[in-house]
Amino acid sequence: MTDQEIVSPLVIPNTTRVILLVLDGLGGSPLEPGGLTELETARTPNLDALARDGICGLHDPIGRGITPGSGPSHLALFGYSPLKHQIGRGVLEALGIGFELQANDMAARGNFCTVDEHGLITDRRAGRIPTEKGAELVQLLRTIKLPGVEVFVEPVKQYRFVLILRGEGLSGPLTETDPQKLGAPPLLVKALSAEAARAASLFNQWVAAARELLASQQPANMVTLRGLDRKPDLPGMDAIYGLRAAAIAAYPMYRGVSKLVGMEVLTTGDNIEEEMEVLRSHWTDYDFFFVHVKGTDSAGEDGDFDRKVSIIEHVDSTLVPDITQLGPDVLVVTGDHSTPALLRAHSWHPVPVLLHSKHCRSDAANAFSERECAAGALGRFPATEILPLALANALRLTKFGA
Amino acid sequence: MTDQEIVSPLVIPNTTRVILLVLDGLGGSPLEPGGLTELETARTPNLDALARDGICGLHDPIGRGITPGSGPSHLALFGYSPLKHQIGRGVLEALGIGFELQANDMAARGNFCTVDEHGLITDRRAGRIPTEKGAELVQLLRTIKLPGVEVFVEPVKQYRFVLILRGEGLSGPLTETDPQKLGAPPLLVKALSAEAARAASLFNQWVAAARELLASQQPANMVTLRGLDRKPDLPGMDAIYGLRAAAIAAYPMYRGVSKLVGMEVLTTGDNIEEEMEVLRSHWTDYDFFFVHVKGTDSAGEDGDFDRKVSIIEHVDSTLVPDITQLGPDVLVVTGDHSTPALLRAHSWHPVPVLLHSKHCRSDAANAFSERECAAGALGRFPATEILPLALANALRLTKFGA
Repeated sequence: MTDQEIVSPLVIPNTTRVILLVLDGLGGSPLEPGGLTELETARTPNLDALARDGICGLHDPIGRGITPGSGPSHLALFGYSPLKHQIGRGVLEALGIGFELQANDMAARGNFCTVDEHGLITDRRAGRIPTEKGAELVQLLRTIKLPGVEVFVEPVKQYRFVLILRGEGLSGPLTETDPQKLGAPPLLVKALSAEAARAASLFNQWVAAARELLASQQPANMVTLRGLDRKPDLPGMDAIYGLRAAAIAAYPMYRGVSKLVGMEVLTTGDNIEEEMEVLRSHWTDYDFFFVHVKGTDSAGEDGDFDRKVSIIEHVDSTLVPDITQLGPDVLVVTGDHSTPALLRAHSWHPVPVLLHSKHCRSDAANAFSERECAAGALGRFPATEILPLALANALRLTKFGA
Repeated sequence: MTDQEIVSPLVIPNTTRVILLVLDGLGGSPLEPGGLTELETARTPNLDALARDGICGLHDPIGRGITPGSGPSHLALFGYSPLKHQIGRGVLEALGIGFELQANDMAARGNFCTVDEHGLITDRRAGRIPTEKGAELVQLLRTIKLPGVEVFVEPVKQYRFVLILRGEGLSGPLTETDPQKLGAPPLLVKALSAEAARAASLFNQWVAAARELLASQQPANMVTLRGLDRKPDLPGMDAIYGLRAAAIAAYPMYRGVSKLVGMEVLTTGDNIEEEMEVLRSHWTDYDFFFVHVKGTDSAGEDGDFDRKVSIIEHVDSTLVPDITQLGPDVLVVTGDHSTPALLRAHSWHPVPVLLHSKHCRSDAANAFSERECAAGALGRFPATEILPLALANALRLTKFGA
């Protein structure tokens, strides 16, 4: 395994530039056994040419058979072990709505739920109240004050919200309050270490106040909290890899994860053309660009095979030639995970990856597709090794062992 | 690595069914360099069709270059690390003869040996006495009683037997008594931890009594004990994977290992047709079926290339279509290790594996053989990842990291 502990001491300065182009949920599957995937179906002459001259493979974001969430899969693409650096659901939820987490913040994912007169849960999602109702109740919860900390409550969607406590001396690990079954009362938050005692007490005070405030509401008369954790303190890509790194991503989750690893998050519109314009105008300011395309994943989640195909074709015909024209020393094109339209969800399937630089060997992959990448010389490998490989091709790593 | 620690928390309920069909010792080698293996020689239209629509690869039961025993290789197929969960030889020998080990049992593999008048070993296998003689001596050894524990002595073959102590407070780790060379006396059993003291003392008492009882015998006038250990306490497949798992295997060793991981071991005759009947009649009772075919390994061990070919063809023409007709959501066909007829023994060669489900991508493997599997998109991977992959394809795992 090419871990950061091995790579980081080998970093040397260079003026080369790397682009990591991520088509979210790129990997797919055929609609019928033996058929073609979305990427295999798409007409992609420009990506095929890069695959032919470059080197290809398939990466596993987490491990064989494991379906990744977007947070861990992007961490892996940035070279951070998603197993070693597990991020709490509260933090991911906060990143997902674009909340600006600070170093000492603790975040929890909240659910409105329904309890009966004995305080036992009868519906863990409060009848999936509409988003507007959730936002209205969040306004109510914002009136709760706690001693010595700032409190933020942010609506997410339907019955979901995020609770953030900001202040000195807050720390996990903490247990969750959702008993994960009906007929049981919400649990108390428990501190799993001595340092976590203050945070546990504050979260419990908040829940007690929320219970009172919501008592007369129906069906959302109570809350549960899950995934209570601190913002992880990850070393930045500048410290680990010596890279001035920038993210060009329109969606909050990806901007948030980029920020976690110390990237500069550039302002962009949400279409491909706008992202390209941002890349072009900052081309000389950074060493590393993460460019994120969301549409492929959304189409997959919608079960829209044809739309996913056409988004891939659009990327191929517009973004890829424009990127190539900038002349990056290393261009990596891949996905963060697979989102087959057949499954309408993220999946465990490994993800096609192509790497193009002037130091690539040629291999058997003559087009950019799951099938061709399976025959590529990069083989099947963990996503965390993509970044070290890109750095090597950018001549930004020296010898191991003098 | 897709470890159980990662997979287990992701398990979600589903009603899908998985079949793991194991052709023991499936992998082979050509009789002449450049020739065909047994599987490549066999005509297998049904397996080839599954390989074409499914996805293929080669698995390493333990690691590259390592020839596995049947116990560890099956543990790996069931998703248990064979390195982390090492099973004592005594326990494996007991499982191999179908002895019903209980939770607190300790088992040792015994050898009859020959010692001279000074007690020094002159033949570590007592001239390979015939099996009948071994059984007769075992009767003699059964007269030995020990304080506070039950003692079982069971013949295995020729000079080999199993010794089992049953009682409270028995524990390893213990050293072995075989000095592994001639001209040395059998060693005393030593406790390698404080808790192991009582077991060490009991085994030594037993050996001292055996020495007296056998004194007048020739050539089997003494014994050595190896691989003294407890029955391992493995978490069951229900706890780890949420699977109601059943084993359909005729031979004691495979039934024993299945029981170790909490499978229900179904009663079956020892031919393929009987196994299929058992599978069919229990089809709705379990989520996971391990179906074991022994003949391929036996033919390999006998050095009978042609018989191995014809057993593979028999499985292809009878068992495979019947299994397919049941409509499992996931079907995995593989071996536990390779047993090339050329070697007349287990070998280190990686093992062909095919996985068929409606969520498979197609790959370059268009038939089921070592050569085609080497080109398959599953690549080359550890056997312990087969089970997580099967669960993923059965839609029995949720996302890692929201």
